[in-house]
Amino acid sequence: MNKDAKAQSPEERLIARYFKPLATHPGAFGLADDAAAITPPAGCDLVLKTDGVIGGVHFFPDDPPDTVAKKVLRMNLSDLAAKGATPLGFLLAIALPTGTGEEWLAGFARGLGEDTKHFGCPLLGGDTDHTPGPVSVSVSAFGAVPHGQMVRRAGAKPGDRVVVTGTIGDAALGLLLRHDPGKAKRWGLSREQHEHLASRYLVPQPRNAIAGFLGTYASAAMDVSDGLAGDLAKLCRASSVAAEIDCARVPLSDAARAALAKDAALIGTIVTGGDDYEILACVGAGKVEALRREAAAVGVAVSEIGEVRAGEGTHFLGSDGKPLALVQPAYSHF
Amino acid sequence: MNKDAKAQSPEERLIARYFKPLATHPGAFGLADDAAAITPPAGCDLVLKTDGVIGGVHFFPDDPPDTVAKKVLRMNLSDLAAKGATPLGFLLAIALPTGTGEEWLAGFARGLGEDTKHFGCPLLGGDTDHTPGPVSVSVSAFGAVPHGQMVRRAGAKPGDRVVVTGTIGDAALGLLLRHDPGKAKRWGLSREQHEHLASRYLVPQPRNAIAGFLGTYASAAMDVSDGLAGDLAKLCRASSVAAEIDCARVPLSDAARAALAKDAALIGTIVTGGDDYEILACVGAGKVEALRREAAAVGVAVSEIGEVRAGEGTHFLGSDGKPLALVQPAYSHF
Repeated sequence: MNKDAKAQSPEERLIARYFKPLATHPGAFGLADDAAAITPPAGCDLVLKTDGVIGGVHFFPDDPPDTVAKKVLRMNLSDLAAKGATPLGFLLAIALPTGTGEEWLAGFARGLGEDTKHFGCPLLGGDTDHTPGPVSVSVSAFGAVPHGQMVRRAGAKPGDRVVVTGTIGDAALGLLLRHDPGKAKRWGLSREQHEHLASRYLVPQPRNAIAGFLGTYASAAMDVSDGLAGDLAKLCRASSVAAEIDCARVPLSDAARAALAKDAALIGTIVTGGDDYEILACVGAGKVEALRREAAAVGVAVSEIGEVRAGEGTHFLGSDGKPLALVQPAYSHF
Repeated sequence: MNKDAKAQSPEERLIARYFKPLATHPGAFGLADDAAAITPPAGCDLVLKTDGVIGGVHFFPDDPPDTVAKKVLRMNLSDLAAKGATPLGFLLAIALPTGTGEEWLAGFARGLGEDTKHFGCPLLGGDTDHTPGPVSVSVSAFGAVPHGQMVRRAGAKPGDRVVVTGTIGDAALGLLLRHDPGKAKRWGLSREQHEHLASRYLVPQPRNAIAGFLGTYASAAMDVSDGLAGDLAKLCRASSVAAEIDCARVPLSDAARAALAKDAALIGTIVTGGDDYEILACVGAGKVEALRREAAAVGVAVSEIGEVRAGEGTHFLGSDGKPLALVQPAYSHF
């Protein structure tokens, strides 16, 4: 008998130890087959999304590995939420630099495991490799939505109100603080406020709680991942409409409000910075209040920030009622 | 109006130019939404697989980009084939080193486009990034299989015959030639034979043609990607059986046969080397001939190479009837 015929490879051992416990879906076959199989819910379409992170590009090499895992999964969950889809599971492709300590992988798997439970989104399968480059993680997430009901980017109509969930700009301010922690003092932030912004950058809070009823209200929606201004411009292009946003109505956390009070120019960072992972939606004027109430009932704030207009382009009006000049309306990794 | 509100980002321009033409599925929404939506065929399960390649690890940095694209897609198509699934589409995550010329991306997209047509597997969505590391490409592929009918690794029974499609070892020999082209002369290969082995390493030929009826015959199957010996060991572990393979019956190309005639030790490379992307299956003794005929009708050779036994472990018998000592029964990237 060949001596290794019974033995697991190092890859199989790591997968069995760290990832198999996350593969709770019966169709993941305990990660012991070549592929996963899922039975789509009757009458539903599958919504498919892939997004990933690269060390040194999308996260800091010294970020805690559990937060890296949560961020990359939540980035994808946020897209499912904005499309009105309920998570079914995901595939994971991870490439680790040779010599990565097992404790990094252990932390990564721990964070991922917490989120697979929290969001009801089990690991279905994966691909593990070593790389001469930085840590690279790619997630492909799958959700279910009633047939033909995926909420699209296209569909916004003149007269619709523009709404967003949660608060905008926290992650972008958190990133500025990460580069220069001294800003916290200059912005007059309490320790709690500093930590709030830092944590919003590290671990987003996707709004999957409203996915089940978003489609009832929204004519168009997307998640805000590359900055509110840039993402709104994409939605308007897809819908062939324009939009006017009142910056004073853009919802801010206490921390962001405090920072903005010290430095009014931060409004540009707030509306163009990335990593919000909130939902941007266009909603008929008569439906906003009902959406706001239903979302509030599941703990998600919805704020009206502007209006869809005929035409093209986006206008962000400052506190003086004049359009802001935004230097970087869209964030692009490419 | 913000000046870039109408403009596409560089990422959007590249996606529109190179990848949008590949996104022919209506549920890809022309890559102009945040996610794709597909309606699963009635009565079918979805089979999900992710596998990827990294420059300098899984392919040579100077490999033609169209072959890189074809290889990574076909690696995934091969898994769908071995599971009995018909391709529906795929998601693509690609990270390019900063400064990668647009001609590389153009070649990559051209190769990918040829294969999306050839295999009827359209691009559904993707994620593009720049990386400080090497080129990295991850594919997540989706297929359909009648409900509950995915062909598993588990299921082989004592008495089943072990069969493989095509020929084994070509890609591993092609890799040896890539490292040392002088071997072609020492093995006495013609130019055509050299090119055959080289091309089998660069661009595998997945056996999707037999996927539709594989499940009618196979009690267990997987694709041979990490070497016949190692993959057979995995299948035997999953099925809790043993297997005995007669190396003399392992199907070889003319080129591999010529090389083996000059260097008998190459049998180890042939049965342990990776990148075959053939299908390994266990089939009841009475069904082998019917599978062979039905596969031959679609241009795929099926060869019986051994038998499933009770117990555990795998035996590869050499031409002298004694078990070979295989030093590396499984290839692992991790």
